Amino acid sequence: MNRLSLNQWTTRRWSVAEAVDGCARHGLESIGLWRQNVAEQGLAQTVKLVREAGLRVSSLCRGGFLTSPGALEDNRRAIDEAAELEAACLVMVVGGLPGVVPGEPLSPGFSRDLAAARERVSEALAVLAPYAGERGVRLALEPLHPMYCADRAVLSTLGQALDLAEPYPVEQVGVVVDTFHVWWDPDLLEQITRAGERIASYQVCDYLHPLPADVLLGRGMMGDGVIDFAPVTRAVVAAGYTGDIEVEIFNAEVWAADPDEVLATMKDRYAALVEPSLSG
Amino acid sequence: MNRLSLNQWTTRRWSVAEAVDGCARHGLESIGLWRQNVAEQGLAQTVKLVREAGLRVSSLCRGGFLTSPGALEDNRRAIDEAAELEAACLVMVVGGLPGVVPGEPLSPGFSRDLAAARERVSEALAVLAPYAGERGVRLALEPLHPMYCADRAVLSTLGQALDLAEPYPVEQVGVVVDTFHVWWDPDLLEQITRAGERIASYQVCDYLHPLPADVLLGRGMMGDGVIDFAPVTRAVVAAGYTGDIEVEIFNAEVWAADPDEVLATMKDRYAALVEPSLSG
Repeated sequence: MNRLSLNQWTTRRWSVAEAVDGCARHGLESIGLWRQNVAEQGLAQTVKLVREAGLRVSSLCRGGFLTSPGALEDNRRAIDEAAELEAACLVMVVGGLPGVVPGEPLSPGFSRDLAAARERVSEALAVLAPYAGERGVRLALEPLHPMYCADRAVLSTLGQALDLAEPYPVEQVGVVVDTFHVWWDPDLLEQITRAGERIASYQVCDYLHPLPADVLLGRGMMGDGVIDFAPVTRAVVAAGYTGDIEVEIFNAEVWAADPDEVLATMKDRYAALVEPSLSG
Repeated sequence: MNRLSLNQWTTRRWSVAEAVDGCARHGLESIGLWRQNVAEQGLAQTVKLVREAGLRVSSLCRGGFLTSPGALEDNRRAIDEAAELEAACLVMVVGGLPGVVPGEPLSPGFSRDLAAARERVSEALAVLAPYAGERGVRLALEPLHPMYCADRAVLSTLGQALDLAEPYPVEQVGVVVDTFHVWWDPDLLEQITRAGERIASYQVCDYLHPLPADVLLGRGMMGDGVIDFAPVTRAVVAAGYTGDIEVEIFNAEVWAADPDEVLATMKDRYAALVEPSLSG
C-alpha cells in the first residue's frame, strides 16, 4: 500500500485535516490535495498537518485553465502553493475553448478556434514552466478525455501532452496518466513507453458504463467500470515510474458514502486490481 | 446544394417514403438510409422509390457491431442490401467491448479486454471486406467519439481507422469522417490528408455543449455547437473527396420538430457553414 495515495476529492466532504487524519488512520503515506480545500484549511496549516502526519503530497490539483483571462497570475499562485506543500507535481488541466464554461450554455462570445486555443496553452506554458522550474515545482500536463475538449482541456491525448512537454526539462514539465481519461486511446501503451520519466503522476479510476447524466461524474471505483488496469499499470511501471498512485473519483454515490468506507474499498480494489501489476 | 445529403435519422419519424419525398421537395439529390427503415419500407420498394426520385444513396447505416455474436451473418445481409441500393458505402460502427450493451448496466459476462476486441474487429473485417468487394460495396469504417468506446466502437480515431483499412483496396474499405466524432483529435487534419481517397463518407454535425443527459443525443445542427467546420471541410476537399456530404443528427429536439423545418434549417446552415469551404 505504500504507493497508494488518496486524492482528496474522492472523499470530497472531508476537509484537509479530516483527509490527512483519514490517510494516517488507514495507513496511507500520500495524499493528493486540492487548492480550494487547502485555501479553506490555510496553506501554512496544511503544510503543518501533512508534515506532522508524515505524508507525501503526491499532487496539488490544479493549475491550468490557460485559455481563460487572468490564467498566468492564478497559475503563478498555484505554483507557489505547490512549492510550499512540496507537492510532487502541480496537475495542469489546460482549459477548453475560450469562453466555453463547464455546465453552462454556450454564450455569444465563445471561440470555436481549437488550433488557437492550443496555441494559447503552449504560449502560457512557455511562461509558466521556467517559473515553476525556479521554485522546484513540476508541472504535470493532464490529457483529459475528449468529451471534455470543449470546456476543460483542449489537451486530449498522452501523445499531444508529450509533444507539448518536450521542449522543457523533464523535472519542469511532466504528464499525468489518468486511466479514466486515456484508457480508450489506441496509441496509449506506445505513448506511455515514450513518456518514460515524463510521467509525473499515475491516477487510477474506472470509466463507468453507462455514463451518468453529468459526464463529469462518470468516474468510478476501480472494478466498477470497463477499464482493465493491468496492461496500463504494467506499461507505467515499465516506463520507469516509481511515484505514488492516486485514486481520484468524481462520483455522486462515492461522495455520499461514509469516507472511511470509501477508503477501505479503495484499498481493497487497489490491492486486487492495481498492486499485482506493480512488480515485474 | 448538389452534394448535401439527408441522413434519414435526422428526420427520424419520417419513413423512407416520406424522407425520399422530402429530399425531392427540398431539392436534395442524395439520401443516407438506415437498415431498419429500409426493412420497414421493404428493400425492393426502397430501391424503386430512390430510383424514381432520382436520388443517390450516399450511405447505408449501418453494418458493424463486429464484437457481437452473429455479426458476420448480419453484416453479409447488410452488404447485400447496400449492393441492392447501390449505396456509396456501408457505414461500419465496429462495436464496443464484448458484452457491453449501450444504455444498459454492465452485466457479469462482459469483457474488459480492449486489445482483444480490436483484434476481433480486424478479423471480422478480413472476412467481410472481400465479400463486400465481390458485390461492389464499399465498407466505410467509422471512428466514433471515444466516449462510445465501451459500448459502440473500439475504433476511436481516424488514424486507427486508416491503419485498419490499409490492407484492403480503397474501393473495398474506406473511412467515415464525421465531425462530431473526430473534431477534438489533435491529429485530425494530418490524418484527413493521409486518408486521401480512403474517405468514403463525410458527415457534418455539431458537438453540443453542455452534453445532454444521454450522450448519444449530443449531436446538433451545424452552428448549434462548438465545431468550426471550415478547416475540417477544407481538409476533406483537399484530400480529394468529391462525394456527398451527409447531415446525421441524433437530437431529441430535432426529432420533435417539423421535419420540413429541419430540412430547411439544415440547408441554411449547410449553405452558411459548410458550402463556402468546398471551393478552393
